[in-house]
Amino acid sequence: MKGIFISFEGGEGSGKSSMITEIYNRLVEQGKKVIVSREPGGVKISEKIREVILDKDNNMSKETEALLYAASRTEHLFTHLLPLLEEGYIVLCDRYIDSSLAYQGVARGIGIDKVLQINMFACQYMPDVTYFIDVTPEVGLARIKGREKIDRLDLEKIDFHQRVYDGYKKVCEMYPERIVTINGERPYEEVLKDVYENILGKISK
Amino acid sequence: MKGIFISFEGGEGSGKSSMITEIYNRLVEQGKKVIVSREPGGVKISEKIREVILDKDNNMSKETEALLYAASRTEHLFTHLLPLLEEGYIVLCDRYIDSSLAYQGVARGIGIDKVLQINMFACQYMPDVTYFIDVTPEVGLARIKGREKIDRLDLEKIDFHQRVYDGYKKVCEMYPERIVTINGERPYEEVLKDVYENILGKISK
Repeated sequence: MKGIFISFEGGEGSGKSSMITEIYNRLVEQGKKVIVSREPGGVKISEKIREVILDKDNNMSKETEALLYAASRTEHLFTHLLPLLEEGYIVLCDRYIDSSLAYQGVARGIGIDKVLQINMFACQYMPDVTYFIDVTPEVGLARIKGREKIDRLDLEKIDFHQRVYDGYKKVCEMYPERIVTINGERPYEEVLKDVYENILGKISK
Repeated sequence: MKGIFISFEGGEGSGKSSMITEIYNRLVEQGKKVIVSREPGGVKISEKIREVILDKDNNMSKETEALLYAASRTEHLFTHLLPLLEEGYIVLCDRYIDSSLAYQGVARGIGIDKVLQINMFACQYMPDVTYFIDVTPEVGLARIKGREKIDRLDLEKIDFHQRVYDGYKKVCEMYPERIVTINGERPYEEVLKDVYENILGKISK
């Protein structure tokens, strides 16, 4: 692989998506070959699979959901990301395998090992580096509250997001070489600077 | 489980599908609670997944295909077969996990262990008994020739079906306790009699 595969992970309100856009712009300004993606990433089959997953009428088992996410990821990787990496692109991917480990593996209770197994079936290509933007659920959800109505589901949400957060913490312990944890509760510019400088360090190697 | 889960496996032209119908009729006549199914089995999500797999425009990786089959099977098992088995039905299933092991695992070259792994992720319920209708590709395809035009793809077909057949043979070796191999190259009535009597033996236990 000539390119660099960078993924970004974090819970709701971690600010990773706007951060990715900013980092993309800066790298483009530097004249780098860079691209942003997130599943299903415009890949036709992955989009069709995503439609099945997200259809509100589809009340499927969590195991079926996990297999469909793995299938969508596999196709996105093979037909979209790998060709770009072969061409030497820096790929900034908004969520990747660690999201499944935290959300399906821990928060939904399937187990990290089992979810890892079905994902590693095909996606043997792990990111070169992953940034986990560490924001506790309380802080992340409070940020979102500014733009969302509060309802009775909020308590359930906090409980679910706490499990996602615990999941991410476990995943970070599993991959200390790959995952860089960034304290995301500081002012946005500081967080962005940390991530961007870390990326520049990786690129220049 | 109060019911009995019976699956039927075999290559093209093995005659298993008409055999299942005949066995179903005979068991119904005997007053048994029996049902025939095959994936996607009328399960909405499984049907949607099957549409993605079978769409001729979808040229997906074999790994994506295997994950989608596993997802479809998982949902079919959880929402259709398991409730019927709980109610005490004899379930006659036209193809199940062994088809994936032979077709995707061996014939498509992914490997039996890998395909087994993603299927066992959720489908921990193996059939109580499986009948492999053993018909060599030469005999099976010759039977089909009667109703299909012969074209240049025939040679390729024979090669592929030979790999499927080799795959089934390996699967039979893996599960000698569960899989009953039936010589399917004899006259149809003889084959049917063997399978039916074997099933009666299982039911009476």
